[in-house]
Amino acid sequence: MKEVDIGQAFTFLESGPVILVTTFDGKKNNIMTISWHMIMDFSPHIAISTGPWNTSFEVMMKTKECVIAVPGVNLIEDAIGIGTVNGTIVDKFDKFSLTPLAAKTVKAPLIEECLKCIECRVIDYVDKYGLVILSGEKAWINETAIEQRTFHAVGNGTFLVDGETLEYKTMMGNRLPKWV
Amino acid sequence: MKEVDIGQAFTFLESGPVILVTTFDGKKNNIMTISWHMIMDFSPHIAISTGPWNTSFEVMMKTKECVIAVPGVNLIEDAIGIGTVNGTIVDKFDKFSLTPLAAKTVKAPLIEECLKCIECRVIDYVDKYGLVILSGEKAWINETAIEQRTFHAVGNGTFLVDGETLEYKTMMGNRLPKWV
Repeated sequence: MKEVDIGQAFTFLESGPVILVTTFDGKKNNIMTISWHMIMDFSPHIAISTGPWNTSFEVMMKTKECVIAVPGVNLIEDAIGIGTVNGTIVDKFDKFSLTPLAAKTVKAPLIEECLKCIECRVIDYVDKYGLVILSGEKAWINETAIEQRTFHAVGNGTFLVDGETLEYKTMMGNRLPKWV
Repeated sequence: MKEVDIGQAFTFLESGPVILVTTFDGKKNNIMTISWHMIMDFSPHIAISTGPWNTSFEVMMKTKECVIAVPGVNLIEDAIGIGTVNGTIVDKFDKFSLTPLAAKTVKAPLIEECLKCIECRVIDYVDKYGLVILSGEKAWINETAIEQRTFHAVGNGTFLVDGETLEYKTMMGNRLPKWV
């Protein structure tokens, strides 16, 4: 993984890919799969939808940190599988043959096989809506991954894979942040 | 447009498409383009990122309603254009040759040329994070649109168009709501 400026991190998530969120409880790493999330500003602040029904939630609330990892479509079955097993019973990194890498600002691990990772601090929980508010601190990209396409949950058991990329930088003009 | 059960509406947005949001101030329709949004539950409750810097925001706060319309990729230049002009100066439906259709529960219009629409009530504004919280009330789909692919803003002036669809209903099993 190559570290890039945190100002780039909002582009990792704005398009709505399914994400993996890692935590470390002091003894063990865990991973959960999330498809309900949003970028809230360019810094970036990120909202993810979770709550006490997820094992990882309690750890996030205690440790105040996590890593968001964006898997390529080659990991789609792992991402679905990660969402269906309990991390208190199995080691998900082991079960899904994923490699935890040390992050710089948090103890939760990056995932080597993912395309992009964001080290995050938990800064708030909006209880009324089940939103964990994260602040992205460090951003990483995997330049060597051959499969760069992400995938988007439709919510009905089907997933949309990234297709064609269209370029509208000129038309977007001053609506884009200067650094992207 | 064909009305479908509101329980389907979360699938319109979960994948993270760029959306158009319409409002009606009592005299005039308006449209804004939004790429930062998220589904928060299946009902659906939806968060969109906006605030006083958008003309439509004030109208949404006053009328407590809007329509979310999901454009196909054939409308990408219109969606970008809608995000760069001021609705207090121009009639965006007129300028972008879009057709407002009467909704059932709100005065904000559906957009005939879009793939899907959700009539929404504004139920809250989380000021701290600039999130308007919407409750989807009625859902519509456009069955006759030939171009069904949506598009996702990356945030750097490029857009990802929906590619292949992958099917994992069986693997998702009881993680899916029963009605999708």
